Amino acid sequence: MRKTLIFGHKSPDTDTICSALVYADLKSVLGVEAQPARLGDVNQETQYALDYFGAEAPERIEEVGGDVSDVILVDHNESQQSADNLQDFRISEVIDHHRVANFETKEPLYMRVEPVGCTATILNDMYKEKGVVVSPKNAGLLLSAIMSDSLLLKSPTCTEADREAAYELAGIAGVDVETYGLDMLKAGADLSDKSAYDLTTMDAKEFTMGDAKVQIAQVNAVDTNQIYESQAAIEKEIDQLIKDNGLDLFLFVATDILENDSDVLVLGTATDRAEQAFDVSLDDNNRAFLKGVVSRKKQVVIPLTEAFTK
Amino acid sequence: MRKTLIFGHKSPDTDTICSALVYADLKSVLGVEAQPARLGDVNQETQYALDYFGAEAPERIEEVGGDVSDVILVDHNESQQSADNLQDFRISEVIDHHRVANFETKEPLYMRVEPVGCTATILNDMYKEKGVVVSPKNAGLLLSAIMSDSLLLKSPTCTEADREAAYELAGIAGVDVETYGLDMLKAGADLSDKSAYDLTTMDAKEFTMGDAKVQIAQVNAVDTNQIYESQAAIEKEIDQLIKDNGLDLFLFVATDILENDSDVLVLGTATDRAEQAFDVSLDDNNRAFLKGVVSRKKQVVIPLTEAFTK
Repeated sequence: MRKTLIFGHKSPDTDTICSALVYADLKSVLGVEAQPARLGDVNQETQYALDYFGAEAPERIEEVGGDVSDVILVDHNESQQSADNLQDFRISEVIDHHRVANFETKEPLYMRVEPVGCTATILNDMYKEKGVVVSPKNAGLLLSAIMSDSLLLKSPTCTEADREAAYELAGIAGVDVETYGLDMLKAGADLSDKSAYDLTTMDAKEFTMGDAKVQIAQVNAVDTNQIYESQAAIEKEIDQLIKDNGLDLFLFVATDILENDSDVLVLGTATDRAEQAFDVSLDDNNRAFLKGVVSRKKQVVIPLTEAFTK
Repeated sequence: MRKTLIFGHKSPDTDTICSALVYADLKSVLGVEAQPARLGDVNQETQYALDYFGAEAPERIEEVGGDVSDVILVDHNESQQSADNLQDFRISEVIDHHRVANFETKEPLYMRVEPVGCTATILNDMYKEKGVVVSPKNAGLLLSAIMSDSLLLKSPTCTEADREAAYELAGIAGVDVETYGLDMLKAGADLSDKSAYDLTTMDAKEFTMGDAKVQIAQVNAVDTNQIYESQAAIEKEIDQLIKDNGLDLFLFVATDILENDSDVLVLGTATDRAEQAFDVSLDDNNRAFLKGVVSRKKQVVIPLTEAFTK
């Protein structure tokens, strides 16, 4: 039987990895030959979650291949964030919670996008709709995704549905929401062994805004000052990324997970658009403090897109 | 309170009109200030359904305007099939059953696309999920949409879900599925008062295939030969449409609703792609018989897109 491949976005985060794993499991229960995959390295936060609940990371692939009948995208839909050869395959489903753009199919599909904080919250609903019980392991993985995307339920992207799902799943998984969540986030915020290259690429997403190509990297930290001790090296990596990928703008968003603010580093030819978007002036270090900004999707992409398109 | 405007595609068909009406009603029951609208004339088939179940056509608009907070698209998502100034408004929801293309939002939304034969089938599910009872009038409108899109449940796009919904809704509406459906389709297939311009535009949709601009009109008839008695006049209108809209290809699909075949007329510079797509040779009249072809979405758009992109 040809299989269905399920994967999330490049530079995978906890929601992308856990949603691929759990949805592949649900599909298998429903009789579909489904296999989870990932398009990049597992980050430390996600590894903590996988280890905690005894799960294996999905197989890493560079592109879709093998005996694949169709693909299911979780946690993304924009083609530049997906497998490079996506257009050669039939997309049968999308389960996502982002804006929709740069996405096209030849045929009708099952596409479920909801304005919630996390793909895992949608998957939790799908278990109920299908009448399938979530195992403690899968509940733990879904909970991890929600705590990650919602920064401990404190991000403005977090909805009542995410909050309810988190407490419900924590009950099944047998962990305390706050304690587990903070431990997981701290594991991810341990940046001691990260190179400047790692920091700028480990959670980076590319966007088309108007005619501009924009890349936005985000790093969670307990102390953002520590990150910027290597600012010179980080800037060098970003300059290279701008050159290699023909970017107009690169935002490096260092987010303080305890204070819930961000310190952003902005490089490229279109830095004025970032200043306009956030109503700030960059300091001599090309940086600005963004009070209360923790969500790339809601507090960075939206105002920046507006600055590029209005 | 600023309102939510709900509408389907240009050149509205029965699913587009009825889904806009019924979903606006459901939204109102759920406490949303929703108003249905339409982007074109009501066709005879749809008018029959509206009259039969005592419904008024939604207000016709040329573009989105007035005190609108956001819009909901039903039965379409491709921007060229939607309101011309769509990009100026926030799209909060899409309920659809077509392929996804040329669609983009700035923000996350509720997007529900399912590979079923009709938007109305999805709406019938949504009533259940929300715990709202469908009134006999709304059930009749939803049934009409299903019978129209599925050509009396015989189109290859028709799924088991559409069939079940049709029988369930017919029970609520108090009509016989087959008798009512055939009467409605025959009312729509009465082309006696249609000009060549009407025939080529009343159910026409535009598609981007590769780099090509393609328009596909479909007309249901009890006797397709009767339509082609005015072929010269139809070709003249199509030539004008090709010129005015910069089209590479125009397909005029005349579908026999009793025999479930189509007789297609093909004009433009890319007619070879149509021959390739359907594995036919056009006759001296620029026409070809397409055995068993009744679904534009599944049996015309898909092979034609492949011919343009491979």
